[in-house]
Parts: sequence; structure tokens; C-alpha cells
Amino acid sequence: MGAGIEPIGVVEGGRTEVVDDEWGDVEATIVLDGSVLEPDAAQRLEEFSHIEVVYLFHLVEAGAVVRGARRPRGNPEWPEVGILAQRAKARPNRIGVSRCELVGVDGLTLRVRGLDAVDGTPVLDVKPYMVEFAPRGPVVQPEWASDLMRNYW
Amino acid sequence: MGAGIEPIGVVEGGRTEVVDDEWGDVEATIVLDGSVLEPDAAQRLEEFSHIEVVYLFHLVEAGAVVRGARRPRGNPEWPEVGILAQRAKARPNRIGVSRCELVGVDGLTLRVRGLDAVDGTPVLDVKPYMVEFAPRGPVVQPEWASDLMRNYW
Repeated sequence: MGAGIEPIGVVEGGRTEVVDDEWGDVEATIVLDGSVLEPDAAQRLEEFSHIEVVYLFHLVEAGAVVRGARRPRGNPEWPEVGILAQRAKARPNRIGVSRCELVGVDGLTLRVRGLDAVDGTPVLDVKPYMVEFAPRGPVVQPEWASDLMRNYW
Repeated sequence: MGAGIEPIGVVEGGRTEVVDDEWGDVEATIVLDGSVLEPDAAQRLEEFSHIEVVYLFHLVEAGAVVRGARRPRGNPEWPEVGILAQRAKARPNRIGVSRCELVGVDGLTLRVRGLDAVDGTPVLDVKPYMVEFAPRGPVVQPEWASDLMRNYW
């Protein structure tokens, strides 16, 4: 079964090279595709401060996808963890999900800050972030994950 | 360009009917596909309390997808908002993203609580939830969204 998923837009601007860290201040534009969406597809989106973006890690080649376990970023100080227990790019389906600040909306053009996706990234979905969609209950995570995220934003 | 996205697993159990609200206590199992993933793909995932699940709203027919604006849940008290400014199922690419509690892991079988996806839902990705992936800065959302979410979990 194919999921029949196609991009609805593209990230323009921001970084052109894949870098691990310091994404927090990067500004970019999501240009939504007017041949897939109607002009009012993002109507009133500006009433939300943050959006959730689903995108494709399109620079990862099919042959590079990891389907088992490996050390995050190849760091020998961190344990071998399954690809689904980390957020690495080289994952099955190569889907990225992250939250960023919505700076402005002009029709089908969204200005964002802190989106960890390079120039040219295909966008699969944009959703408004609602506080109720945060995890319910206290969040626990292993130490390696906190270490890895230290300079991410 | 096709994104070449295929399910990596399926939701089993939980609800069999699509219901808008009260998902918080629903327990279900994500059965990952051993023909797509290696046996250690979820290794050490149990060290995280919550996961982020990317899935397909597979019961929405292609012809029902909304590409412009509409009132959320058809509620006349709420404004007309673009499909990308709401989290409705009938959206381009029909991709759902939500956070749920991870109750247990047994190889490629994940036990979850509070996943808003019905029995039979194709799963496209599973990611560990890390606190650093929460939105940075205070979250603002319109009143209709808070109203809609009142009984969701």
C-alpha cells in the first residue's frame, strides 16, 4: 500500500547546509503550493504563535536509511539505540516533525523561526500547535538525549 | 515527486470507531512491521515516557480532503479557518501527529495510552519525545481551539 503522500510546499531560505546544532534563530519561509492548496488554506493560522511542521529529510539517500540500532550521531559516549528511539534523519520514511515559531502569514507564504529544516526541504503538512497537544504527565528521557539536545536550538 | 512513504506498523486495539473526544485513557498497541524494521529498531525506547506518533488518517477518502477553509467540526460558533490552521483529519496528505504515553515495549510491539488513532491505523513513524522539542517561548492560540480541545483527552 502506498500512502500517496506528496509535498504541499517547500522550505525556502534559512540554512543551505545540514548542520546538527543551533537552529533556534534560523529564519526561513514555507512556500505552500497553490496547485495543491486553495488560497485560504492557511486562513487565520496567524492566530497561533507556533506551528508543527511535518517534512521530508530529502537529502538522505534511500540506501542510508537505518532500520535497526546505532549510536546517535555516532558518538561512542552514547548507547546503541534503535532508530525509532532517536530522532535521526536516516530513519524509515525520512519524516521530520518539529515545532517552530510562526512569525507571519501572507496567503500561502509562512514566515518561521527555529525550523530545523534546510532550504529546499519538502513540506508534507503544517498544523497549528495547541497547548493541549503537549504530552500529558511528566516527561522522562535518558541522559544521552538531554546531552544531544544541549546546543540544538 | 512521490515521497515513497509506506507504513512501518499499525495500531491494534483501542477504539474501532472514529470519535472526536475523550482519547486520554484509550490504550492500544503499535505493532511495528518486522519486514520493514530490524528487531532492535525500538531498542531502549522504553527509557522515554512519551512518544510522538506520525500516522495516516486512512479512513478519510481522497475525495473528502479539504484544501481550503471550513469551520472546525462544522461548528457554527467557530470561525472559518484554513485546513492548515486546524488539526482536522480531512487534510491534504491525511497525516496525523500526536504525543502519547509509552506504557511498555516488547521488541517491535509498543503499548501506548492516549493515542488518538483508531484500530487499524497505519503508522508512518515513531519518535521519542524530548522536552527540548516542545515549542520555545509562550504559546498563543485562539479561543476556538481551546474550546475544541476541552474534552479531547
